Amino acid sequence: MSEETQLTDTEDLQERLAEVQTLLARHKLVEELVHRQEGPRHDLVEDMVHKQHLNELQARLEPMHPADIAYILEALPLDERLIAWDLVKAEREGEILLEVSDAVRETLIDSMERTELVAAAETLDADELADLAPDLPQGVIDDVFRGLSVEEREQLRAAMSYPEDSVGSIMDFDMVTVREDISLEVVLRYLRRFDELPDHTDQLFVVDRNERLKGVLPLNILLVNEVDVEVGILMQTDFVELEPDDLADEAAKAFERYDLVSAPVVDPEGRLVGRVTVNAVVDFIREEAESEQLAQAGLREEEDIFASVWDSVKNRWSWLAINLVTAFVASRVIGAFEDSIEKLVALAALMPIVAGIGGNSGNQTITMIVRAIAMGQVQPDAMRRLLRKELGVATINGLIWGGLLGLAAWWLYGSFKLGIVMTSAMTLNLLLAASAGVGIPLLRQKFGADPAIGGSVMITALTDSGGFFIFLGLATLFLM
Amino acid sequence: MSEETQLTDTEDLQERLAEVQTLLARHKLVEELVHRQEGPRHDLVEDMVHKQHLNELQARLEPMHPADIAYILEALPLDERLIAWDLVKAEREGEILLEVSDAVRETLIDSMERTELVAAAETLDADELADLAPDLPQGVIDDVFRGLSVEEREQLRAAMSYPEDSVGSIMDFDMVTVREDISLEVVLRYLRRFDELPDHTDQLFVVDRNERLKGVLPLNILLVNEVDVEVGILMQTDFVELEPDDLADEAAKAFERYDLVSAPVVDPEGRLVGRVTVNAVVDFIREEAESEQLAQAGLREEEDIFASVWDSVKNRWSWLAINLVTAFVASRVIGAFEDSIEKLVALAALMPIVAGIGGNSGNQTITMIVRAIAMGQVQPDAMRRLLRKELGVATINGLIWGGLLGLAAWWLYGSFKLGIVMTSAMTLNLLLAASAGVGIPLLRQKFGADPAIGGSVMITALTDSGGFFIFLGLATLFLM
Repeated sequence: MSEETQLTDTEDLQERLAEVQTLLARHKLVEELVHRQEGPRHDLVEDMVHKQHLNELQARLEPMHPADIAYILEALPLDERLIAWDLVKAEREGEILLEVSDAVRETLIDSMERTELVAAAETLDADELADLAPDLPQGVIDDVFRGLSVEEREQLRAAMSYPEDSVGSIMDFDMVTVREDISLEVVLRYLRRFDELPDHTDQLFVVDRNERLKGVLPLNILLVNEVDVEVGILMQTDFVELEPDDLADEAAKAFERYDLVSAPVVDPEGRLVGRVTVNAVVDFIREEAESEQLAQAGLREEEDIFASVWDSVKNRWSWLAINLVTAFVASRVIGAFEDSIEKLVALAALMPIVAGIGGNSGNQTITMIVRAIAMGQVQPDAMRRLLRKELGVATINGLIWGGLLGLAAWWLYGSFKLGIVMTSAMTLNLLLAASAGVGIPLLRQKFGADPAIGGSVMITALTDSGGFFIFLGLATLFLM
Repeated sequence: MSEETQLTDTEDLQERLAEVQTLLARHKLVEELVHRQEGPRHDLVEDMVHKQHLNELQARLEPMHPADIAYILEALPLDERLIAWDLVKAEREGEILLEVSDAVRETLIDSMERTELVAAAETLDADELADLAPDLPQGVIDDVFRGLSVEEREQLRAAMSYPEDSVGSIMDFDMVTVREDISLEVVLRYLRRFDELPDHTDQLFVVDRNERLKGVLPLNILLVNEVDVEVGILMQTDFVELEPDDLADEAAKAFERYDLVSAPVVDPEGRLVGRVTVNAVVDFIREEAESEQLAQAGLREEEDIFASVWDSVKNRWSWLAINLVTAFVASRVIGAFEDSIEKLVALAALMPIVAGIGGNSGNQTITMIVRAIAMGQVQPDAMRRLLRKELGVATINGLIWGGLLGLAAWWLYGSFKLGIVMTSAMTLNLLLAASAGVGIPLLRQKFGADPAIGGSVMITALTDSGGFFIFLGLATLFLM
């Protein structure tokens, strides 16, 4: 981050946003007035008054950090966003495009000419370019590619070749390397030749003539030792070493466990090919958490909050369609027992309770199990233990809550037998929920699917249809 | 992290876990055999064979990083966990206690003597102690307190006084400070007097005689400049400055936006009181994401996967109780329309669809809005726009999905009017869901509550009861 950039806390940022919005509103007002005027004075007025607010706006945006400009662009409706975007200096556009969300990035890229896009992309490093590439038109990528050095082309090709959730996709190429047979004095002199060290340089990588990684030299060690000592004596040889094909999630866990700031990435032959830094890891963790949260609610991806109604409908329809199908199945289960319901209409009022509580309880179980699997703490042996425990919890909950509801049903409808059916159905549905809560993620894992995805829908579908079936079935058997 | 500690990736870690479990299993087997034997040879055999596996286990645990030992302890059932815990060297217990989850920490602390706990606590820094303190018996805290220096007592008191979600609660006191009127040469000489620099020292803090923070000197700048330059010339004066009472979440956002490794914390008078490092921020982000995930599923806190059935019941009961109440209310809404259901039993089969899809759609909306609020991007003006958009989405979804279901109802039950009621009820319930999805988080925010919490229960309760009421109400009006 350059020295002249302003850094602000969130409150200030919201104030800036308000200022930007005020300026944009004034600008729009003037524009409207100008457009209402006719005749020869039109151009003159426009040139004078019109631009004033835009100049002021540009002056506000100028010193801001790219991440802050990205924040402001996200918070603006499309038309205002594009006005502000036009005021951003070309050399900063690349960095800002990296910071905005996918949905907003799309709107910005759509508004840019090909030459503009090429210029913006050319300001970026290979690893950053690789992040942006999927959103750029192929022509732009080709143009940028032609402008790169051989080494950069190689890096870009490498960075683009790794899948999205791999270490390769979050690594950069800004490592500082030294040899092990030189003294700290030489290292310090070498570093002084840099204009600046790459961000997040907390250690230097010690490599041999073949670029093979021999060790790491933390700056902290460099700084506290006498300058005549050799690198080889001080370098650490036990350090976290990643490979480009490792899962990014594994790298994130290593960063968390060992409190790392950077970690080297080596190829299978042990040659240093890049590094991962903690800021890439933080972004990765945040994005993972967000996409999980969105998936949980059935949103395909983050929405630009100013997206059109139609974009939102598209983002949400698949989840609703799935739920519609499962709800329809549950409805047919009820349909099969219409005779019983006709005879005892109380069943209609009570059945959603059985289904609903089963779903809630099943979601508790599945959340627990998915987390345990994600931590890698679930051994096959532990599984039986977990299932036993969950069944125990379900039984207790069934007896307590089911018992309570049984009493309520008895009291409301004056039928003791209905109360017993209610309690039994609740308990059975909770047992079903517990088994499914343990079983679904395990089966998904066994067959190589992500245990976290779709579990909630599946379990709710099961406890809905299952709950209706159990309750209405028991009622038909014992009450009709 | 000390040099001799082994660092491992997750796969290795799982292998280690398997090894530990094998050793524990062998140990238990021997123990059982020994206990079955009677007579004088008992003690001898125990001493010889019995301890062999424990010694081996201890040798395995010895070189592991505290975070890795914590991982293994988490994955072991209670009895095995305590056997392994007993083998851990006393001086490492403090660090490990910091790494394990709350639930597991409780089991470990419960197994320790007071003197052991005091010894473990005394190995920690003030900020770490403050994290552990809530789980320690008061007597232990008092003992530890007596052993601290005046400065450390002050730090501990300060660290313990900040609320859990404040910057004060995640800051540490390991900052390196320099004066602005000295040359880099002097700084470098000063640093060489340290045995090691504090972890995550990426910048030095420049303070005056009154400890007032004047600027920061990144190591990267220290290293690339000539040694005769003065600190005051090179130090950066625009930097992120936190206060202990700031929200930790704000600090996390600043770290993400500006890719920080550390940031100074100053009191209202501008005096440097501590610093926040990226590893504390990463832990905070991860914990926040996890507790949100748990809360979403209605789990009060993370469960030790080997917790007793009873502990699990306690962790989950409040959520089930709330849902039971809302389900009961919904059930009473249905109860009010029992006459209609008796006359047209198809209503019983169709009503859960209306309620369910409303809930799903409402949860999509609320997730969107809560995220937008959390990003600080929702201005009062934007709100009306968002509501309009969500109502638009709801109308389209209502017409598409409601229309489909209307056709299905018509086809299944041969009543065109029933189909119309179905479509209208779906659309109305989706509109209700959209309004609530926008309104609930906004109202909660207005009244100072966390907009993220409890929204899902509230909206599901509303769309359930509301859906039943709308559908059965319309049916009663137009079909009876």
